[in-house]
Amino acid sequence: MKVLIIGGVAAGTKVAAKLKRLDRSAEVTILTMSKEISYAGCGLPYYVGNVIQDRDLLIANTPESFAKLTGTEVLTGIEVTGLDRDKKCVTGVNVETGEVKVYTYDKLVISTGASPVKPPIEGIDLENVFFMRTPEDADALKAAVDGGSIKRAVVAGGGFIGLEVAENLKEKGVKVSVIDMAEHIMPGFDPEITEYVEDHLADEGIMAFTSTKLEAILGTDKVEKVQTSRKAMKADAIVMSLGIRANTGFLADTGIEMMPNRTIKVNEYLQTNDENIYALGDCAMVCNRLTKAAAWSPMGSSANIEGRIAAKNIAGEKVAYPGVLGTGIVKLPGLNAGRTGLSETDAAKAGFQPVSVMAVVDDKAHYYPGASSFIVKLVADAKSRKFLGIQCLGIGAVDKMVDIAVMALSMNATVDDLEHLDFAYAPPFSTAIHPFEHTVNVLLNKMEGEFDTFTPVQYREGAADGYQVIDVSIQPSLENAVYVDLSSVNGELPQFGKDDKLLLVCSKGKRAYMLQNRLKYYGYTNTKALEGGTIFNGSDF
Amino acid sequence: MKVLIIGGVAAGTKVAAKLKRLDRSAEVTILTMSKEISYAGCGLPYYVGNVIQDRDLLIANTPESFAKLTGTEVLTGIEVTGLDRDKKCVTGVNVETGEVKVYTYDKLVISTGASPVKPPIEGIDLENVFFMRTPEDADALKAAVDGGSIKRAVVAGGGFIGLEVAENLKEKGVKVSVIDMAEHIMPGFDPEITEYVEDHLADEGIMAFTSTKLEAILGTDKVEKVQTSRKAMKADAIVMSLGIRANTGFLADTGIEMMPNRTIKVNEYLQTNDENIYALGDCAMVCNRLTKAAAWSPMGSSANIEGRIAAKNIAGEKVAYPGVLGTGIVKLPGLNAGRTGLSETDAAKAGFQPVSVMAVVDDKAHYYPGASSFIVKLVADAKSRKFLGIQCLGIGAVDKMVDIAVMALSMNATVDDLEHLDFAYAPPFSTAIHPFEHTVNVLLNKMEGEFDTFTPVQYREGAADGYQVIDVSIQPSLENAVYVDLSSVNGELPQFGKDDKLLLVCSKGKRAYMLQNRLKYYGYTNTKALEGGTIFNGSDF
Repeated sequence: MKVLIIGGVAAGTKVAAKLKRLDRSAEVTILTMSKEISYAGCGLPYYVGNVIQDRDLLIANTPESFAKLTGTEVLTGIEVTGLDRDKKCVTGVNVETGEVKVYTYDKLVISTGASPVKPPIEGIDLENVFFMRTPEDADALKAAVDGGSIKRAVVAGGGFIGLEVAENLKEKGVKVSVIDMAEHIMPGFDPEITEYVEDHLADEGIMAFTSTKLEAILGTDKVEKVQTSRKAMKADAIVMSLGIRANTGFLADTGIEMMPNRTIKVNEYLQTNDENIYALGDCAMVCNRLTKAAAWSPMGSSANIEGRIAAKNIAGEKVAYPGVLGTGIVKLPGLNAGRTGLSETDAAKAGFQPVSVMAVVDDKAHYYPGASSFIVKLVADAKSRKFLGIQCLGIGAVDKMVDIAVMALSMNATVDDLEHLDFAYAPPFSTAIHPFEHTVNVLLNKMEGEFDTFTPVQYREGAADGYQVIDVSIQPSLENAVYVDLSSVNGELPQFGKDDKLLLVCSKGKRAYMLQNRLKYYGYTNTKALEGGTIFNGSDF
Repeated sequence: MKVLIIGGVAAGTKVAAKLKRLDRSAEVTILTMSKEISYAGCGLPYYVGNVIQDRDLLIANTPESFAKLTGTEVLTGIEVTGLDRDKKCVTGVNVETGEVKVYTYDKLVISTGASPVKPPIEGIDLENVFFMRTPEDADALKAAVDGGSIKRAVVAGGGFIGLEVAENLKEKGVKVSVIDMAEHIMPGFDPEITEYVEDHLADEGIMAFTSTKLEAILGTDKVEKVQTSRKAMKADAIVMSLGIRANTGFLADTGIEMMPNRTIKVNEYLQTNDENIYALGDCAMVCNRLTKAAAWSPMGSSANIEGRIAAKNIAGEKVAYPGVLGTGIVKLPGLNAGRTGLSETDAAKAGFQPVSVMAVVDDKAHYYPGASSFIVKLVADAKSRKFLGIQCLGIGAVDKMVDIAVMALSMNATVDDLEHLDFAYAPPFSTAIHPFEHTVNVLLNKMEGEFDTFTPVQYREGAADGYQVIDVSIQPSLENAVYVDLSSVNGELPQFGKDDKLLLVCSKGKRAYMLQNRLKYYGYTNTKALEGGTIFNGSDF
């Protein structure tokens, strides 16, 4: 069996290595345009920031070492320009010599990846316009920054990579702004979460300008200014992180079915509409595990899973890819942000009846050094009680919170399945009531009508207009609010009528919940607790 | 409804607070023998070690603040000495005045906790014999250590608390040894795991003497020596951490059903054999979620979950406790150790056909600063393919690995359910192939017959006797082994016969797997890879 793999980064090398283990007799050849294969694209921002100092560490394998280690043939510097499905062959051009060759296959794997979007705007080819996709891209940016010529930079695009680049540039003393065309940075999170992150980044010295379009890059030889739809920004450099586009141009007119965003359509076995041709990694469109809708997951993690599955299927097994959850995590200055499953926005779009809760909970025993808070938003379906997703912010183990949710979502858990779980507890790691469990309890209280709230979104939309604010913090901390000492409430509050509209606010939400519970008992009918308290909604007080 | 709660630490205060929220009209009274309630017992070792410097942080609530906050009546300094189930009342003695009173109830909650085992041996009342159960215990040890009089200490008992005390004493410059009557420290882990931990602790300067019984404590006024079944050890202090015993003496002759270890038997609603009497926390015997066998879980985390459930049931709901998984985690010097579910030993005892695998995997991107390895052991049932448990060691996020497994076990996942999961990945947090996923893949390879191994236990038991050792490390690193460069293997190895018994060893196990795969293809029939490689089995090479 001759297996031809086009592309040799994460997906391509994984499918090759696994396939050779499953069937060493398979003749596996990787055709790749670049000189390097199997590099750690996700590590590039950290190499720029000197967090990773040894460039060699970013290269998992050279073409030679990979070939030896796995028994795969690796042909570098070959650009595939054509595909003939009838003859089962592709045409490859040697990018150095121009020599054209034909490569035949029994099974073809397309794992050509994606390339950064390079908009056709003025100044795009100026010096100090950088990208962040390949080791060479990172070398260029790093050299310029280390050379001392970059004092101010604009990062165009507020996705994870853009934000990681921003953090790393900031750590090297560069003044960084982020611009994004969308209403918010970090696609996939709900808007109130990204607003919180935007405020946090501003506190850390990284301004994020959203709803801001990149229009031109100005300068004589080098970047001098970045012209946006909002204003012109002084900058010595711009890092283009506007997204990526699947490298699928060579498939035009081949009859391979494509999606509107130029990714390749595949079935659950990662086959294209030609059963002998597989597509995976950044150039393929997979599906969402929860909704089964098309989902693009250009992530190293997905590429590896898909590589394993494609290899098994090529070797004759029949393994279906259950799809992705849209999991993502990013380290920002002083804050980690992670998510998985559906956001509230996406859950509504997918036809669920989302109910959400936001809770601020301790991330480890409050008395243990380094203890901090998680801001956790859980989303569930009100009708089926199916658990739908998590979004989590915090300086601590956000990855743990997300991974627990990944496991739960992958098992189709309902919110009730998430109660009473025996998670790991010791003071250096967690709290006696685990932060995940704690948040689940708050959600269940809300779904059972024991916790009546305004979410941060409802609050911002004006739901609390006409409400008197009661400050139920440990100590008075809100202006224009009546302070109530929770500990002293043992009966009616004479200053309020039973039907008064009362918004209960504390730092995290817990004391508001406790006061509400007590006021209900004493006959108050119109109380609402503010989810997320002043820690999350602080900028509104 | 009059609800009487005996005991006011984690379980007692939780049931009181939750019950008052569910039904503020309930008259809830806590009777507690001590002066303090609701303290963080798990934090005490860290207070001794000055990791936690502010003692007040360990006290979640004073009796007064708790009473005000929740509306519970708290009576301290009351020892309950008797129970009359017919009259529905208990007898309490004021420990200061000796005054005897009778307290009636509609529902009684027994959450009296447990006390440290204090063996009746010579010298047990000498100065510098310490316990580690209450804030006062911690105060005493801390004062002695801070006073400079403790140079050498023996910790009697190698459970989590004992090891935490050992770590904290060591951090303060005390020379510490741990003695344990059992064959190994850390009950609940498989023996090869605890042996690894014992070796690690020795490297860190903490000697663990196992199968070693405490026989006497010698000294004139203060501790001078600790006499064990093995030898006499010089010591200025001994910390007794030999386990705890449920505080249930007052229930003798009341007809309340007890377990052989003197804990209280409860049903899934946490009721004793008297439906008006609940028991929870350290004094109650609950069940294992997987096997439904009796399980004792004297942990702050279990106490909180049980408190929530008992409160709901007393308030009229019908909530069953699904039981515990035996989850535990401990921070040791330079190593975290965690587990959940069944160990291989316990799985076999419970009637499963356990299959296990041990893998050494990266805990985050290998190029990211601070990256290290996890040593992970997974256990599953060979027949049903049910996932049964995890044990994990590492300097990184062991809590994450354990909590993922908790979620999986709680959903009754099979090993197949654990494949292809979209866990969170970015270099600061994880690897592109998530360490949990990676280990699952290794287990599946083993279960599918693609990975033929000796486990560390099989190896130690002599299964590899008669095998030639092949060193398949990146560079030759084993004495008395034939080195084979994996990259150069492209056919038969002339120095070995096809039926030779070959043990393949590398640092983590992965290269051994790859070589085995290749050798099988070339017709070698008797190869075994050593699970855990030299990183885990290092002391044997």
